[in-house]
Amino acid sequence: MALEGRFEDGVVRVGSDARQRYHDSRGYGYPLEGNEIALAPVEAAHLLYRGDLEAVVDAESGERLGFREFVAREPGEDFGVRFLVYADLRSRGFYLSPAAEPWVADPPSGEADFAVFPRGKGPGDGEIAYALRIIGERTDIPASELREGVLAVVDEESEITYFEVGRRDPTGTSTPDASLPEGCAADLLADRVVVWEPPLELYERTFYGQPLEGREYDEPTLQCSLLEAAYLAERGAIDLEPETVRERGREVEGERFDRRLLVYTALRERDVVPKTGYKFGADFRTYADVDSVEDLGHSELLVRVHPADYVFEPRDLALDVRLAHGVRKTMVFALVDDDAEGGDGIDWWSLERLTP
Amino acid sequence: MALEGRFEDGVVRVGSDARQRYHDSRGYGYPLEGNEIALAPVEAAHLLYRGDLEAVVDAESGERLGFREFVAREPGEDFGVRFLVYADLRSRGFYLSPAAEPWVADPPSGEADFAVFPRGKGPGDGEIAYALRIIGERTDIPASELREGVLAVVDEESEITYFEVGRRDPTGTSTPDASLPEGCAADLLADRVVVWEPPLELYERTFYGQPLEGREYDEPTLQCSLLEAAYLAERGAIDLEPETVRERGREVEGERFDRRLLVYTALRERDVVPKTGYKFGADFRTYADVDSVEDLGHSELLVRVHPADYVFEPRDLALDVRLAHGVRKTMVFALVDDDAEGGDGIDWWSLERLTP
Repeated sequence: MALEGRFEDGVVRVGSDARQRYHDSRGYGYPLEGNEIALAPVEAAHLLYRGDLEAVVDAESGERLGFREFVAREPGEDFGVRFLVYADLRSRGFYLSPAAEPWVADPPSGEADFAVFPRGKGPGDGEIAYALRIIGERTDIPASELREGVLAVVDEESEITYFEVGRRDPTGTSTPDASLPEGCAADLLADRVVVWEPPLELYERTFYGQPLEGREYDEPTLQCSLLEAAYLAERGAIDLEPETVRERGREVEGERFDRRLLVYTALRERDVVPKTGYKFGADFRTYADVDSVEDLGHSELLVRVHPADYVFEPRDLALDVRLAHGVRKTMVFALVDDDAEGGDGIDWWSLERLTP
Repeated sequence: MALEGRFEDGVVRVGSDARQRYHDSRGYGYPLEGNEIALAPVEAAHLLYRGDLEAVVDAESGERLGFREFVAREPGEDFGVRFLVYADLRSRGFYLSPAAEPWVADPPSGEADFAVFPRGKGPGDGEIAYALRIIGERTDIPASELREGVLAVVDEESEITYFEVGRRDPTGTSTPDASLPEGCAADLLADRVVVWEPPLELYERTFYGQPLEGREYDEPTLQCSLLEAAYLAERGAIDLEPETVRERGREVEGERFDRRLLVYTALRERDVVPKTGYKFGADFRTYADVDSVEDLGHSELLVRVHPADYVFEPRDLALDVRLAHGVRKTMVFALVDDDAEGGDGIDWWSLERLTP
């Protein structure tokens, strides 16, 4: 026989043998006195939806609510998208609880919506697989709210995409810069630099620039991006004033240029080679272990640079992560805090598609 | 013996047997009197680069310029990127000329940089394969400047991406709306609509909504996007006021909602089924020939909706077109002119990657 619940003070209380039936064996709600339990609205909606709960009586109005009536009231913020994700994970065999006491004893920090338990575990087992945050595709996410865990985005047609959000500090073993040449002849063109016949190693070993094609050379003329040129000029490898190159960079790109140069430099200093990510719509693609260009491996990361106060649109995240996945790379966001004290002021985050 | 040219009034004049050597046999420049020809700076640079031209003498200063000195002067707007693309297409075996008289008799309209001739043809053959426009990755393109032809984008590291730009009017043969139900019960939630147990055909044949999973139904409860709901309400298929749904759409999406609804409606009226393109970062993915959802083919297009006065960033174009290509779809931009008189005010453009 299906039970009835009572909706009061934001939770649905269910008596009789609800504790054994819903909480102990299936992970819904939290126990009250005796066999009574309290359910979050999303949990009650799921039991109504499944037909396990017959109805919910509104304590104030006395109204008896079925699934449709209960849902139409949207009990709680973002009820619709939370319900969809709750039901989806339940149907995949996971138990999950609101990320708050008393549902879980030690709730995750940040803006988490649910604590998802490891497969086969429930709220009483003291283990949380990950914190889950849920947003609709129209809800923007400030970069400062990124947390390790899982982000579920519900699109306008109610399909769900899961992203695993994590820290990702890039490191590599590429040939270090010790062998850079000195003072190679170079010309600054509109928004690029030509380096005239530098030692072959500048391209072949340390992977700066792009040879001008169509002529054979032992010492190929290289076209460098303004970022590469600013970095090389700073180290005396080409005979341009670093500040001249940086100024040109700011002229053509605005303040973005300094942020990108900071990230470019940080990657080079970690022995990772950044090359342009333009073809993937990103700032950089990166190679962790370049020994020689002839023997170049697959680039592992796509890096997009943003200021620390950037606000992500879920649609752009979907595009970036989908594209990165399609070309077997990991999408990394480098968030640059211009006012950071100590460190390089860069926060590295990865986002990857996840199938729970 | 390599010849010398004379740089004067924006062109490089070359005498001796230049006409036979460079123009008639290899498609450079245009003929002047006798055997003399005039070269655009980019053509002269290419001949210098190849070593076919020994030097160019600046008529004003008397200076004798080699390739490096000539290039460093950046003779002409966007000289660097134009040279790179010119050299690339030449190395692929194509002849091309500045898209202007007297290089070609009948230059293409719009902002074209070069007229590219069919393989094996040259400027004297009276045939143009396509108009080519060249931009650097930092140059924005107003939607109003899109032209049929090819767009070459040179990225910051001087790699070139070619896009074929064309008109693309979507048409289809999907089950028309004649069979829509009437007045199905529906509730408007925050930013989506639930349609309660409509006839199965609404989903199965005409592909509206997404069934709420986890329960078996002959008449599944459907979740619809606000766009689908606005369209269905307009046609009396669900019992919501069309204006109520549209207002909600504007609340959560702003003026974007009306533009998207216009495009959604236009696609449905062309017997094409639009579904959300969120997972691809687009507005819609479209199915041209839906007969039943069980037998759904591959979606052919990704559609992104923009206002007619939108300005594209090449980086975003790269991302969209790359992603579409990766999932074997064509990227289409629907440009909506709110002030259009007559027609539906939508301009459809496709962009596809091209390897010349």
